[in-house]
Amino acid sequence: MVRMALDLDVDVVQLTEDLVNIESVSGAEQEVADAVEAALRACAHLEVQRFGHTVVARTHLGRDERVVLAGHLDTVPLNANLPARRDGTALHGLGACDMKGGVAVALKLAATLTEPNRDVTYLFYECEEVEAERNGLQKLATSDPDLLEADFAILMEPSDGVVEAGCQGTLRVDVHTRGVRAHSARSWTGVNAIHGAGEVLGRLNAYEPRRPVIDGLEYREGLNAVFISGGVAGNVLPDACTVSVNYRFAPDRSVEEAYAHMREVFDGFEMELSDSAPAAMPGLGVPAAAAFVEAVGGKANPKFGWTDVARFSGLGIPAVNFGPGDPHLAHRQDEFVPLEQVTTCERQLRAWLGGAEA
Amino acid sequence: MVRMALDLDVDVVQLTEDLVNIESVSGAEQEVADAVEAALRACAHLEVQRFGHTVVARTHLGRDERVVLAGHLDTVPLNANLPARRDGTALHGLGACDMKGGVAVALKLAATLTEPNRDVTYLFYECEEVEAERNGLQKLATSDPDLLEADFAILMEPSDGVVEAGCQGTLRVDVHTRGVRAHSARSWTGVNAIHGAGEVLGRLNAYEPRRPVIDGLEYREGLNAVFISGGVAGNVLPDACTVSVNYRFAPDRSVEEAYAHMREVFDGFEMELSDSAPAAMPGLGVPAAAAFVEAVGGKANPKFGWTDVARFSGLGIPAVNFGPGDPHLAHRQDEFVPLEQVTTCERQLRAWLGGAEA
Repeated sequence: MVRMALDLDVDVVQLTEDLVNIESVSGAEQEVADAVEAALRACAHLEVQRFGHTVVARTHLGRDERVVLAGHLDTVPLNANLPARRDGTALHGLGACDMKGGVAVALKLAATLTEPNRDVTYLFYECEEVEAERNGLQKLATSDPDLLEADFAILMEPSDGVVEAGCQGTLRVDVHTRGVRAHSARSWTGVNAIHGAGEVLGRLNAYEPRRPVIDGLEYREGLNAVFISGGVAGNVLPDACTVSVNYRFAPDRSVEEAYAHMREVFDGFEMELSDSAPAAMPGLGVPAAAAFVEAVGGKANPKFGWTDVARFSGLGIPAVNFGPGDPHLAHRQDEFVPLEQVTTCERQLRAWLGGAEA
Repeated sequence: MVRMALDLDVDVVQLTEDLVNIESVSGAEQEVADAVEAALRACAHLEVQRFGHTVVARTHLGRDERVVLAGHLDTVPLNANLPARRDGTALHGLGACDMKGGVAVALKLAATLTEPNRDVTYLFYECEEVEAERNGLQKLATSDPDLLEADFAILMEPSDGVVEAGCQGTLRVDVHTRGVRAHSARSWTGVNAIHGAGEVLGRLNAYEPRRPVIDGLEYREGLNAVFISGGVAGNVLPDACTVSVNYRFAPDRSVEEAYAHMREVFDGFEMELSDSAPAAMPGLGVPAAAAFVEAVGGKANPKFGWTDVARFSGLGIPAVNFGPGDPHLAHRQDEFVPLEQVTTCERQLRAWLGGAEA
């Protein structure tokens, strides 16, 4: 096996292409993590540590402020979309958008900004695209939370080069209706649990989701059935039906508050929590965050989907998403990243961190 | 392998027990059909024919009227409920209720009524408990319909010893709702197909089933969801949901009329027929049927469930269910038949067919 070595002297677009060409589906990040680690260990101004396939590199310049630049190394499964292919304006291939463009920017800055105006913790982690317990950032937050300490964090997920602040939370509840089985030829002797679910769907249809404004950003909640199932046999009244409901809630609600709200909405029904993840406040009132937004164009959008910024938020660290690539292209076979967004992103972050023009 | 020979000289209760002890799960009726065929071939007054594991035995006395006595030889799967066990009042075991009690009565009459006042076609058939295309009666109706010609048919399914007339029809439709997939974090960009099914359930909940009176019998229709399914992933608005609805309809409606009614009920929804079986008119106005009801006590109940009487009805032959055993015990592990019902059933049919007291 020929191991790829990463040359951090190439330009950020070439570096993105090189990273895309190191296949790194979740769980198979050994090679890319080895290459990232080796390249960073060559930089005298960085302290480098390795945890599984997660690599942490830090400056220690005694600055007043410390910021995190973070990106995951893994991709969703291969889908006949490697190796990378470049056209005049974009780089195509697995992970180009989500998120090797952002990783390339962070790596390039790590190697070349020997004296940033803020201390920086660069974080390249494994298994973001799979279940939470394998997530490298989550593992590090549990095992070595001090390594994540910072005044502000930038998660370099694709955000079309515009700051996306905070993120909405998510929870899923299973709402159950019960009945009494009976032969459908004598249906008056039973109680149909699927018919009972009509009221659950009625409440969902009548529900008016909130659109709260937080730190000047308008969030949009949503309440949706994502699964429904019931039935025993073609000639039997079913005695059970389950509606799985996904509530996406704005950052002004905790998971507990969101769950309590579900209890109100489905009052009278048997219900259980099956899954949850907290929201993250946009935190744009924090000086470091406000300064960053100002430095990269003054614009911020609310983040509707859930991302790892919530993990920083859970540690009390304000965090935003900011990276090259259209987030709607993530996980698509034809994902790509515009070359101009990669270079602009690098230039903006370099300027913010006090670096000279490249 | 020791083959059971059936002795038709024993009393009808013993004959029921002997039949139960010949295991005959659907598809494995060879042994019981061989025994029935051999016993009937010993009767000089019967013409006996064999089709697969279906046995037909007919008198040819030139009577004005011909009647069918029919019963299926198969049972549902074994469930640790063999061999037969007799207590003071009942015979227990697989098939005791559904329907070897009825088969024993018909066999006993076939062997002993050498000169019935009506010509009789005795029909012992295979595979009633499985899919329609294996059903011995259905096969015979297709291959040799002349063998089923009669003025009246009695299907000796368990009916608690009371005539159950006609049967309701059944059809199943799949009602589909469609939507547009979207990430549940941005639900306003999609259309939720499960939410769309709320209207389908609403119509089911508002539906008032008919209770038409036909030939003096009150039928009860029913309209019920028997399956519901929808969902793509826990974070995706589903683009499809299907509600399977079972309509049980009274004998005054054809399958076509029943389906047209479903079209009305679910007007505006995509819908397809997945399954249907016609109803059977009670036919109690036909002289042969009226005389039979009178002969066995004057009482008749409507049959709500679907049975093979509909196959006779489809051939233009009025038919009723009449046999020993509680129909609610059919297919239960603990099924049994009351001894008194078996002997009463034999006595009543014997008297109706002009036989002497046993």
